[in-house]
Amino acid sequence: GDRFRASEHQHVRYNPLRDDWVLVSAHRVKRPWQGQLEKPPPEDVPRWDPKNPLCPGATRANGEVNPKYEGTFVFPNDFPALQPDAPEPDDNDHPLFRAAPARGVCKVMCFHPWSDLTLPLMSLPEIRAVVDAWAELAKELGASYPWVQIFENKGAMMGCSNPHPHCQVWASSFLPNEASLEDRSQRQHLSQHGVPMLLEYAEQEARRKERLVVENADWLVVVPYWATWPYETLLLPRRHVCRLQDLSDSEKDSLASIMQRLLIKYDNLFEVSFPYSMGWHGAPTGSYLEEDCKHWQLHAHYYPPLLRSATVRKFMVGYEMLAQAQRDLTPEQAAERLRSLPEVHYKKRPE
Amino acid sequence: GDRFRASEHQHVRYNPLRDDWVLVSAHRVKRPWQGQLEKPPPEDVPRWDPKNPLCPGATRANGEVNPKYEGTFVFPNDFPALQPDAPEPDDNDHPLFRAAPARGVCKVMCFHPWSDLTLPLMSLPEIRAVVDAWAELAKELGASYPWVQIFENKGAMMGCSNPHPHCQVWASSFLPNEASLEDRSQRQHLSQHGVPMLLEYAEQEARRKERLVVENADWLVVVPYWATWPYETLLLPRRHVCRLQDLSDSEKDSLASIMQRLLIKYDNLFEVSFPYSMGWHGAPTGSYLEEDCKHWQLHAHYYPPLLRSATVRKFMVGYEMLAQAQRDLTPEQAAERLRSLPEVHYKKRPE
Ligand SMILES: O=P(O)(O)O[C@H]1O[C@H](CO)[C@@H](O)[C@H](O)[C@H]1O
Ligand SMILES: O=P(O)(O)O[C@H]1O[C@H](CO)[C@@H](O)[C@H](O)[C@H]1O
Repeated sequence: GDRFRASEHQHVRYNPLRDDWVLVSAHRVKRPWQGQLEKPPPEDVPRWDPKNPLCPGATRANGEVNPKYEGTFVFPNDFPALQPDAPEPDDNDHPLFRAAPARGVCKVMCFHPWSDLTLPLMSLPEIRAVVDAWAELAKELGASYPWVQIFENKGAMMGCSNPHPHCQVWASSFLPNEASLEDRSQRQHLSQHGVPMLLEYAEQEARRKERLVVENADWLVVVPYWATWPYETLLLPRRHVCRLQDLSDSEKDSLASIMQRLLIKYDNLFEVSFPYSMGWHGAPTGSYLEEDCKHWQLHAHYYPPLLRSATVRKFMVGYEMLAQAQRDLTPEQAAERLRSLPEVHYKKRPE
Repeated sequence: GDRFRASEHQHVRYNPLRDDWVLVSAHRVKRPWQGQLEKPPPEDVPRWDPKNPLCPGATRANGEVNPKYEGTFVFPNDFPALQPDAPEPDDNDHPLFRAAPARGVCKVMCFHPWSDLTLPLMSLPEIRAVVDAWAELAKELGASYPWVQIFENKGAMMGCSNPHPHCQVWASSFLPNEASLEDRSQRQHLSQHGVPMLLEYAEQEARRKERLVVENADWLVVVPYWATWPYETLLLPRRHVCRLQDLSDSEKDSLASIMQRLLIKYDNLFEVSFPYSMGWHGAPTGSYLEEDCKHWQLHAHYYPPLLRSATVRKFMVGYEMLAQAQRDLTPEQAAERLRSLPEVHYKKRPE
């Protein structure tokens, strides 16, 4: 028969972090698309809008007035999914009807006072300020909560209801599903192989190169071998780092730089402000700060939905929800495409 | 402190089928929504369109002409994610870079010759014909493949690119993730409790009633205790049934009837053709036909995205992708709302 080529021949790939599989059917990108088209993001966002609750000086839902902040700005989410106190659910009366307590806090962090900016359009010192604020919040909330989830929903397609550059931070009294999964698989890898999974993985990818997108002295970004979303990436440190708050000053600088390079490439891919959900995973905190967390390696996941253009996304629906994630181009194809894109933002290119 | 009320106090609930948790924060539905609005489905779909490849007599992408079919119609997907033969991936050279073979077939099944119908608008005998075709395909493809995933993506929001009423069937040489998860948890439940998990669950829900949506002599539909999507439901037989092909004639009739009642309620909820992805899970097939599959119970999942109205959906994004699914109303609230809706379709109500 034929020789195997990943770009022509369907196969499944194992995701060691989540302990599951993805179906890679790269030949499928050839099919024509006649389904839903996404609206491109608005181009005319005003820099300052007193009616936008994320702007400096604006009044929020709870009546509070934002300060005239000039850098990052953190405040409590006015509609939090997690609150610091809630009574405990009643005793579970049956193993198929199990509830457990959930406590926490939800915060919003504005990246910049201007609504018409996004991270890839911000300067390095401005991005570095975001990294600092992330590390501070991770430390502060991690003092008492076992999990601090920092995440950014970018673009209306990703459920983001406000164009102002911002992220959210939800700290919880429990380890969420994704954290438990990654804890289990990283723990197992360290005990079986004697090296943290993602440290070994980064070393391998730095050598193999075919899935690399950008790299510098401290960090690398790859389209992981097991990527689910078309242009999904994984941002990894080269040295063993457990948590955001463990980064050195110079690692924070180089993080700001590699994020900027990645996000400019993302915007350049379809010449549109690239939608995604991203977030940080590091070793658990709270009472876990006393425990051995050496199996953990800090990393960020970027999950962008676009597949073919600024208006055609990948839908993770029927087969994906009921059976298994499926992708329409290989991770190597995605990485090559991202790698070849310029590192100057398309909006800043000389005509 | 306060007494615990699920509708007021955040908590987590355990999903025994997937072995994970969902965060229930019902107080959160109060927040205003200023994000993306979905386009309602088109109202003017022509009954017959020779350019629509799913219509009787139309020419498909591969040049074949559809027969002038009058009931259901099954044909091979012209852009299949799974094909019957593909060379095997090369040997895996590292535990973090694991690929495995994937083979299979993808079929499309039209429910009806008319493009302007959907299941809830079809007659009972017409829906019964769909059930028969499902059972036949499950049996036919299950003779050789271990997993036959029948699923319907309904609505553009769910990545469906053709309004003609249809579903898909993807049969694979491997057990997909969701199948493996459910296999493991159902196996464990039977061995620990001596009764199939979902048989016990259906009995409990039939007695507790607060999450029931519709029921008849053979079937019940509940918003499961651990539902993720706002109006997610689980369709369960009352007796122990492993696979679609094991249903009796009268169970197929009563299945057609309960599906019709559920889907009419769904359409009536926001007076719109209700989008969802749904699919069937039953005991594995192929070589598993020889094995003991008594831990399995046949069931269908319905995953609809709408949250507040025909145009406001739930986004499973940042926190959900990176940490844990989160819902904004309790399963009991969703069930009550669905239960109270009329069983006559809003389009067929006398003025
Ligand atoms: O095969 P279709 O209907 O074109 O495609 C749809 O369903 C598939 C199976 O869930 C998904 O992989 C696609 O992303 C979605 O658009
Ligand atoms: O809090 P936001 O930005 O209003 O809401 C968005 O992010 C949340 C966390 O991922 C999701 O639960 C919501 O569905 C989404 O719309």
